[in-house]
Parts: sequence; C-alpha cells; structure tokens
Amino acid sequence: MELKSFIGLDEAIRKGMKYKPRYKSERVSVSAAVGRYSAEDVVSPSDFPRFDRSAMDGYALRSEDTISSSKTNPSIFRLKGKLFPSSSEALEVEKGEAVKIMTGSMIPNGTDSVVMLEDSSEKGNELRVYVPVRKFQNVSRRGEDIRKGFRILGRGELVEPPHVAALLECGIEEVNVLSISIGIFSTGDELVSGTVRNSTQPFIQAYFRKKGFETVGYGVVSDNEELIEKALNRVEEDLIIVTGGTGPGEMDLLPAVIERKGRFVFRGLRIRPGRTTSFGFYNRKPVFMVSGLPVAALIASENVILKLICEWYKLIQETKEFRTGILARSIVNTLGFRSFVRVKTEGSGELTRVIPTRVTGSGVIYSLIDADGILVIDENSEGIEEGETVRIEVLRW
Amino acid sequence: MELKSFIGLDEAIRKGMKYKPRYKSERVSVSAAVGRYSAEDVVSPSDFPRFDRSAMDGYALRSEDTISSSKTNPSIFRLKGKLFPSSSEALEVEKGEAVKIMTGSMIPNGTDSVVMLEDSSEKGNELRVYVPVRKFQNVSRRGEDIRKGFRILGRGELVEPPHVAALLECGIEEVNVLSISIGIFSTGDELVSGTVRNSTQPFIQAYFRKKGFETVGYGVVSDNEELIEKALNRVEEDLIIVTGGTGPGEMDLLPAVIERKGRFVFRGLRIRPGRTTSFGFYNRKPVFMVSGLPVAALIASENVILKLICEWYKLIQETKEFRTGILARSIVNTLGFRSFVRVKTEGSGELTRVIPTRVTGSGVIYSLIDADGILVIDENSEGIEEGETVRIEVLRW
Repeated sequence: MELKSFIGLDEAIRKGMKYKPRYKSERVSVSAAVGRYSAEDVVSPSDFPRFDRSAMDGYALRSEDTISSSKTNPSIFRLKGKLFPSSSEALEVEKGEAVKIMTGSMIPNGTDSVVMLEDSSEKGNELRVYVPVRKFQNVSRRGEDIRKGFRILGRGELVEPPHVAALLECGIEEVNVLSISIGIFSTGDELVSGTVRNSTQPFIQAYFRKKGFETVGYGVVSDNEELIEKALNRVEEDLIIVTGGTGPGEMDLLPAVIERKGRFVFRGLRIRPGRTTSFGFYNRKPVFMVSGLPVAALIASENVILKLICEWYKLIQETKEFRTGILARSIVNTLGFRSFVRVKTEGSGELTRVIPTRVTGSGVIYSLIDADGILVIDENSEGIEEGETVRIEVLRW
Repeated sequence: MELKSFIGLDEAIRKGMKYKPRYKSERVSVSAAVGRYSAEDVVSPSDFPRFDRSAMDGYALRSEDTISSSKTNPSIFRLKGKLFPSSSEALEVEKGEAVKIMTGSMIPNGTDSVVMLEDSSEKGNELRVYVPVRKFQNVSRRGEDIRKGFRILGRGELVEPPHVAALLECGIEEVNVLSISIGIFSTGDELVSGTVRNSTQPFIQAYFRKKGFETVGYGVVSDNEELIEKALNRVEEDLIIVTGGTGPGEMDLLPAVIERKGRFVFRGLRIRPGRTTSFGFYNRKPVFMVSGLPVAALIASENVILKLICEWYKLIQETKEFRTGILARSIVNTLGFRSFVRVKTEGSGELTRVIPTRVTGSGVIYSLIDADGILVIDENSEGIEEGETVRIEVLRW
C-alpha cells in the first residue's frame, strides 16, 4: 500500500457506490420490524380515524345548541343513551338532545361536537352545559390523523416505535424489511496467540448490529494466505469486513488474496484515523478491510462502510445532530487528509467549549468513551486555531 | 378521577420516587450487554496498553540518533531483527541500531520511538532515516489509553459499543447487567371486539424495548373487574403498564381494582397530553396506567414511567439534545398544565423554524412520525407567541 495511491474520501465513496447488490427481504410482524429497514413504501389503505370520533369522555351534541351557554345560564339537553367505543348501534340525535359518549366512540348522526364532563353536569335525564362548544370541538375527524394513501413508511427507512402505532392503527400487521447481513473476522497472529486482545471485531460487530444489520463473527485468523482465503470463503453473509491486516507492513496477506481472486476498488484513504481502510471484491462479494485499532475501525465503519451500505441499499441515513462551540486547543491537520477528531464538549450555548480528547492515536479507546462529538477537519485545512468557533457532529451510538 | 385532584408533574415524580425496588442482575457477555444497563461499576484491572507499543509499522530506534536527519543527510542505522505483535523475545537495541517493528508490537529495550516506513528506506542490512524523530513518536505509551483503576462503565450506565472495545481490551469478558422487565396489557371492550385497534400497547412495548428493558405483552382485557384483576395477577414482570381504561368515564374499572388491593400514589396529572396518567401499587408491584391514545401514552412513558424507572434503579438517563428556533405559529397553554407539543423543524442555524405539528389531539399518530422535536410549555405560561425563539428537545427513539 503506497501513500501516493491513497485517495480522498469523497472519491472513494464515488468509486464504491457503483456496486448494485441483490437484496433480500423478509416479511415480519410490525413489532419485530423495529430497528430494521423497510423494504417497501407502506401507504395507508384508508382514512384514520375511520370515522369522526370523540377525543374525550363527555357528551355529544349540536354545537349550535350551546351558543349562549354559561355558568349562570346553562343550556339544557335531554340525555339519550350512551355510546362506547365498542358500540355499533346507529343513534339519531335531534336538536336539544345529547348522548353520553366515551373517548374513541363514533360521533352519532346529528351531532358535531363533544362537551367535556368537567363543563357539564348530569341529573337524571337532563344534561346542563356551562360553556359554548365549537363545531367539532373534542372530535377527531375522519382521516385527520392519517389520510388514505399517506406514506407511513418509506423504502429504506429505519422502522421506529411510532411506525408500530401508525401501521397497526391502519390494520397493517406485517411489513417487508431488508435482510442485510455482515460477516466479520480478524486477522493477525497476535490475536490468535492472545498477545493482543481481539476487541475491535466485537466492537465493530456491536456497532453494525445497533445500526440494524445482522452480524456474524467468524473469530480470528492467523497471518496465513491459505487460512485467510478459507475464512473469506466461509462467510455466507452479504458483505465481509476484515479487521486488522491492512497496514503497509509485510504481514498483510489479505491484499494478496484479494488481488488473486478479486480486485481492489481502493487501497488506503486520505483520512485520519483510518488511512489503511480498503475496499474490494472477493468472489463478487464486497470486502471492507479496516484497521485493527478500534478508533480507526470505527471512523472507517461510520464514514466508509455504513455510507456505502446506505448508498447501495438506498437506506435513509439518520439525520446527524450538530453543535457549535469554541475550540479549546489548536489542532494541526496534514494537508490532503480529512481528520476526524474526537472531542468532548463542556458548557452550553455560546460558552460551549470543544476539547479534543486526543488528536492522535487511533487505538485510544478511552477517547471514544469520553468523547461526545466528532470534529471533521477538511482536506484543504492546515488545522484549526484555539478559540475558533467550530461545528461538531454529536456522537451517537 | 377529579380534575382538582390532579397534581403537577414534578410533584408526581417526587411522590413516585420513594419506591425502592429489589433488583435482579444477570451476568452476560460484554457483547450481549450492549443496549442494557450495567449493574456495577467496572474498573480497569491494569494499565492499557500493557506496555509501550508501536502505533505504526516502521522501525524502532533511539530518537536522539535522528536529530540531524534530513532528506539529503539521512541517519544510517544497522537493522537488527523484526518485531511482530505476537513476538515475545526480549531484544536489546544499542545506539545506531534499529529494529523493524509492526503496529502493536512491544517497543524493544533501548529504543524510544518509531519512524514510519514512508520516512525511511531499507537496503540490505541498512536503514536510512530522512526525518528527525521525537521521543515517543509513534509510540502508544503504557497506560496512555486506560489507566489501572479507570472506571470503564458506571453502575446504571447504558452499555454502548465502545464499552465492548474497552472492556475486552482490559480482559473483561462478562459484566453484570440489570434485569428490568415490564408486563403490559390493555383494557377496553372496544379493543377486544376490534372496533378500535390495539396499537398503543405494541407501540409502548417497542418504546421500552428500545430503551433497554425486557417487555412482555399480555394482550387485551375486557372492561370487567374480575378479568382485569386476573390480568394484573398474571403479570410476572417487575412493573406493570396498563394502557387504556384511565379516563374519567364510567368504563374505567381498573382504578376500582387498584383501590381494593393496592393504593394510588397519584391519579391524573396536570400534563397535556397524558392527563389521565396514574400510578399506584397492586400487590406491592408498581402499576402505571396510561391513556390508550398513542401520543398521550408516549408522553406519559417518557416523562413519568421512564423517569421513575431511572430514579428507582438509578439508571443514567441519556443526555438530551436541544435545538433553538423561531416558533412559526402561536401556541396557547392552559395555565397550570405542562404541555408537550410535538414540533417539526425546518431550516438550520438562526433561520430554524419550529412548526407545531398538532397542538391538540393526543391520538394523532401522524404528528409523531412527522415531528422531530418536543416543545415543553411550562405550567406558568399562558402560551408562546409566533416569532418567539424557543428551545426544543430533539426527538429520539
């Protein structure tokens, strides 16, 4: 891997985007779909609510009969029956009549509003109403929530808890979600012998699992071309991630295997940390190679792998939150590299201070736990001076 | 349920806080702990890295031997062996000597820095170094990442992917996590008959599952005291949530059951939506009663149930993100009530517009899907005028 062959992140994404994966989907219950990506646009088959219904416990009546109502001069109504959400009878209500009604019940014919219990009093067959009621007051109108044809869920959208409510309300009990699976293994004699602990692989696996993908770990593999090839062949998932084994040093046998049975799309990126990040195909399956150092692996996962997966499968990425603050310590950038600096914020509002937790050291895990944001420094920048106002991306897991 | 007995949210939390639950924990693998709450403080048993190690592929040498190195006047070193992360041999390196070293390998005795491959060239047994190298350059110092005794994970903290990396690096493969389980059922003949679809229960279940709790759904129960009592007795989980059946109307039989075999801590809250939210104990088990309308149930779940669970079990709540913007439409508040208004933001920076998606209608699911924030209006406020700058809480699932 030659530094001069390294490419910029934007170019890497452009080059990587061209892949068109075949995708699988599966039909699951709406509840089981939470945390996964929809494989289809789901639209409401009908209006919701399906009818005008009461938004309160109270009395359904004609609003025009209450125009002059007041505490001292209540309107008087004749009570006629009771309506529950489970009622199916058709009640006809005339002028001067009211019907006791429970939240969620269908508004009876002839009425247009509901007066709350607190604003009325019942005595025998008589109802007194102490306030004027507006037309449609305390009434949820048919279709006011979700209109027939409204897109409840978009293709590629992450299913969240409120979708569960909306889909079920519309009578939709199952949805098609994308099945995207990732097989992950690590290379390195030092991992096999235990001199270095295999922490990056479970970390990256947890990261992608939390993002809604199925992940399978294939353990650690020695620095041996034959074994690496075997490991690549063993992965049954849609994508492969290999951690470790991409440094410019001589122990990096994975590239040789890739070059024999596949091809590289890019080898090495002008990003920091994560410069050894590479991507190619092996037996037509996408293979990402990331550093064995956890922070470098994370930066590559977030900015390269997740980004390309979202492009390929047309997943809608979460909107990122940003915060601005004053940089507490100058940061130097290597021209031509995009740096991802972990920062910790202190204070709030205009007094927010942005403190780089560690400028170098991609293995520094502590900085990940401590950090609450990422400051991205552009390729064209030589760095940012202490005291400058910067915009940071809020770190979310 | 009388409006005048309704209490404010802060008072409700104070009253509810007094409960001291017994808690269970279970020992799980670090990977399985992600998304759950730690039952213990976990501290690093040793320094990490455990030794000074190379942060790069390159050559270990004495920095003082490179002081005057330059492109035209390189320092010359005699090469002596190679070190891999899996090496365990003890190499002694003298003045003028260098050792080829791979990322992650232990720095050999006698050296204090590593020069990158790019800044040197190897020819036979000779190494040329073209730049001066600082002491400890490209070296990860022992303990620089995590010091012995550093608290990696705090009791009550949500386990996130980077904890996986940190714990495994420190050789910790299992942690104790809290087991907190919630049993949920719904009441209402209209749900049993299917006139109204049971969407709130699966929604709230998905909400609490995503927050790291085990949830079990017990389906729907008719408006019948005996059946409601049976349902309460059937729940084996630590906490009970009942959706529906808490309106001030006459079909609300759950309160009668609670009053017979338990007690209420509060009945009705001065919040909007969610004013029917109630809390008590049944057979000494906490029971939350929330509206059957999804938005009201959500506001209660987030601001009452989750808040009390966090207090009881001493869970560390996620830090909330806030955003400011200009209110696009006036909102009226009922004095004495705290309102939770769903809003949608448009634009960014100083031009951010905050648009209430729906001011009333707690059943309005669409507003949940569309909204990206919540604007909280205080009890003492009569409302907020269009054009005022407001701070909203970013909605996260």
